[in-house]
Amino acid sequence: MSRLRVPVQLRWADMDAYGHVNNVQMLQLLEEARIEAFWSHPDAAEGERPTAVLDAGPGAATTTLVARQEIEYLRPLAYRRAPVVIELWVGHLGGASIDVCYEVRDAATPTSGPVVYARACTTLVLVDTTTGSPRRISDAERAAWSPYEGEMVTLRRRRTPDAG
Amino acid sequence: MSRLRVPVQLRWADMDAYGHVNNVQMLQLLEEARIEAFWSHPDAAEGERPTAVLDAGPGAATTTLVARQEIEYLRPLAYRRAPVVIELWVGHLGGASIDVCYEVRDAATPTSGPVVYARACTTLVLVDTTTGSPRRISDAERAAWSPYEGEMVTLRRRRTPDAG
Amino acid sequence: MSRLRVPVQLRWADMDAYGHVNNVQMLQLLEEARIEAFWSHPDAAEGERPTAVLDAGPGAATTTLVARQEIEYLRPLAYRRAPVVIELWVGHLGGASIDVCYEVRDAATPTSGPVVYARACTTLVLVDTTTGSPRRISDAERAAWSPYEGEMVTLRRRRTPDAG
Amino acid sequence: MSRLRVPVQLRWADMDAYGHVNNVQMLQLLEEARIEAFWSHPDAAEGERPTAVLDAGPGAATTTLVARQEIEYLRPLAYRRAPVVIELWVGHLGGASIDVCYEVRDAATPTSGPVVYARACTTLVLVDTTTGSPRRISDAERAAWSPYEGEMVTLRRRRTPDAG
Repeated sequence: MSRLRVPVQLRWADMDAYGHVNNVQMLQLLEEARIEAFWSHPDAAEGERPTAVLDAGPGAATTTLVARQEIEYLRPLAYRRAPVVIELWVGHLGGASIDVCYEVRDAATPTSGPVVYARACTTLVLVDTTTGSPRRISDAERAAWSPYEGEMVTLRRRRTPDAG
Repeated sequence: MSRLRVPVQLRWADMDAYGHVNNVQMLQLLEEARIEAFWSHPDAAEGERPTAVLDAGPGAATTTLVARQEIEYLRPLAYRRAPVVIELWVGHLGGASIDVCYEVRDAATPTSGPVVYARACTTLVLVDTTTGSPRRISDAERAAWSPYEGEMVTLRRRRTPDAG
Repeated sequence: MSRLRVPVQLRWADMDAYGHVNNVQMLQLLEEARIEAFWSHPDAAEGERPTAVLDAGPGAATTTLVARQEIEYLRPLAYRRAPVVIELWVGHLGGASIDVCYEVRDAATPTSGPVVYARACTTLVLVDTTTGSPRRISDAERAAWSPYEGEMVTLRRRRTPDAG
Repeated sequence: MSRLRVPVQLRWADMDAYGHVNNVQMLQLLEEARIEAFWSHPDAAEGERPTAVLDAGPGAATTTLVARQEIEYLRPLAYRRAPVVIELWVGHLGGASIDVCYEVRDAATPTSGPVVYARACTTLVLVDTTTGSPRRISDAERAAWSPYEGEMVTLRRRRTPDAG
């Protein structure tokens, strides 16, 4: 499988009073990378980016709902001007839902492996904007996303019990 | 065990282009409730709020680091002027870490049970600001927080494998 | 004339890396106070708050556009749990626009006058959501807002030249 | 004089419930462009960007305080993936303060002039972090910024009276 690599520019405002990228803002960076990677962008130069087919902007026929998110923070992310690289892949393609996995990291350098700041997973449900009900992932969407299917991201054991 | 109940005022800016409280902003509401519930607030009227003892503001001796978060969204939260009520309790008190559990809900009404919008859990690590290393939870902190210990919040089964 | 007094709760996330309420976030506090003061809130306890008549939420017939804003910051606003008090009044009621003036301050105390953190002015234009064109302020709106008309807020001289 | 041209990537979260870039968020875009243009960035590839000399990050010797801001919005900015271009220049270089002027616009195209979304001006004061008092602009800073001095941005006449 291959992973999508989306550079995301930090903003100074992402820092909180501790002087690091705030843990909540980290999820906004994930949101940004997910939209860049999986949505269609008619007016942007696509370059080597994969063809995404999801049109889920305002007024579009599909609304994406976030059903759950899980993130672990491996080390504080200090502010810097160089973008972080967010790697994304699809951990699971269900009937109407998709699990997007992430790794937030530095660009790799010749002399050292990449530093990983966070790992996360988001479960998205596709909803028909008109009816408000979940709708099935289309064949075109499945074809566009399946090259990026891979194993679910591995996260630390949680203490939270599973619902029955 | 008892739960802390913190009303949190929504802001119009919490809504995203879908017209609901954004999934990322929901975590900012949790952050806000956690600070209100567990930190010391020398200049605020405390009322019936429990005595919190954590001083983790800018310049304080302790920095709180978020190590992991998990949230599930049960239904979209529409904007309204009445505050949401965030219930908090302690799912686990470790040596240097604390698992804070949440339920985001409406105030209960006489005629109907509360509507639950989200359930979540945050693992916090207490860090000594000077050394940058985790520091143990003090006896005073443990005494202040243990009345709010309870069972870990129950969340849906995740597909993510546990790290070995 | 009388002024509206809206307490606005700060959030920890309003602070930036300098440890003060960020200058951009200050405008979000103004937005919040303006919506609290001038919009209709069918589901909130109104108390002594004046009857506001503007329904400009998502899906409403009117959209408010901000045409200009000007703010001066008099002293840094440190984070605290006690709300700031934002005083609002109407500096000018035009045909389709309204100038809202603000003073961000502490609650007054018996022993000292209030501390003022910022003064500002926002020009709002009412737009018909369907046509996208400005629409006139209605008689009902004018009647609701005119008790709060007063002199425009006084700000420091700007160097910016006026457009011809 | 020459202007600095800084492309700034929008985020999906910059949109509000109206589906446009929120008026408050527009000031965060200005903040971002200002930091990119005028601060030193030791770890970023500088490319053709001018040499900025201001080190005002967390822990630095200088803190920048925003003393006033004025912005007018010329047309709503819809979300899109292509960055906006923020042009910046120095409207006034005082002893301890600097007026930064902005124009938020599209990249120009061969067939049409750029669309302008907003014009704005920010007055920054340089403060010595240790003493908390304003400090003079150094010769090195003045030399770095003066190539970008130009006329103050022209904004519409305000109704706000000048303080005496």
